Amino acid sequence: MKETWFPGKLATLDDAECRELLARQEIGRVAWCDALGPVIYPVNYVVDEHGDIRIRIEPRSALAHQVEMGALTFQIDDYDSFSQSGWSVLVRGHGRYVNPPSAEAAPQPEPWVAGDRTFNVRITPQIITGRRIIPR
Amino acid sequence: MKETWFPGKLATLDDAECRELLARQEIGRVAWCDALGPVIYPVNYVVDEHGDIRIRIEPRSALAHQVEMGALTFQIDDYDSFSQSGWSVLVRGHGRYVNPPSAEAAPQPEPWVAGDRTFNVRITPQIITGRRIIPR
Repeated sequence: MKETWFPGKLATLDDAECRELLARQEIGRVAWCDALGPVIYPVNYVVDEHGDIRIRIEPRSALAHQVEMGALTFQIDDYDSFSQSGWSVLVRGHGRYVNPPSAEAAPQPEPWVAGDRTFNVRITPQIITGRRIIPR
Repeated sequence: MKETWFPGKLATLDDAECRELLARQEIGRVAWCDALGPVIYPVNYVVDEHGDIRIRIEPRSALAHQVEMGALTFQIDDYDSFSQSGWSVLVRGHGRYVNPPSAEAAPQPEPWVAGDRTFNVRITPQIITGRRIIPR
């Protein structure tokens, strides 16, 4: 049997902690709901000076369609298998286009994936929650 | 400006590749839809001999309620910031309880978080898709 630590406890992260974690990462997950349930894909992102999340997507993608439809979820997490610790932040909000690229479109992430990622999307958080495992 | 590699291309992972990645990880993300859109939380998991995903959850959680309601999404990914590469696997399926713990409830993950995680849930994949960034 694999050796384990004593299980940890979940602690709630406050808004400032969640925003600090959001500002530090470069990959998050954008999610929306279709007829089968949630769809989740990793994306490159940056956080702008308003605390909004900026992503760049393909115009004719399912995600592009979803931006027009409304609710988007954004999620980040990280964990460490050795210490069996980790945290996650869940952002529930709405996306909107900020096209054509202009002053309002900045800052922009540089996607790791090539392609016609001409749609700049700005996700404004409505509800931010987070939690982490603390050792006991 | 941050130095970047040439952007990569997205390649599709086949079913066997997705299942191999699922078998290798220990943390994934379970997701469902509520009135505001997707909810996503990291969970410890194991894959059983049928290729089903096993998680342990708290009986009176929003997730426990969702298992009774139907569709669950499970997602894993990993990425490397230095090489700007990564992959993700998206599992769309349904969960069901396998309680009380019995032969059918095995194998069980060992959650990193303490608590009353007495509900053994088995997620049977319906659709598995995956993709990774390949360098150009």
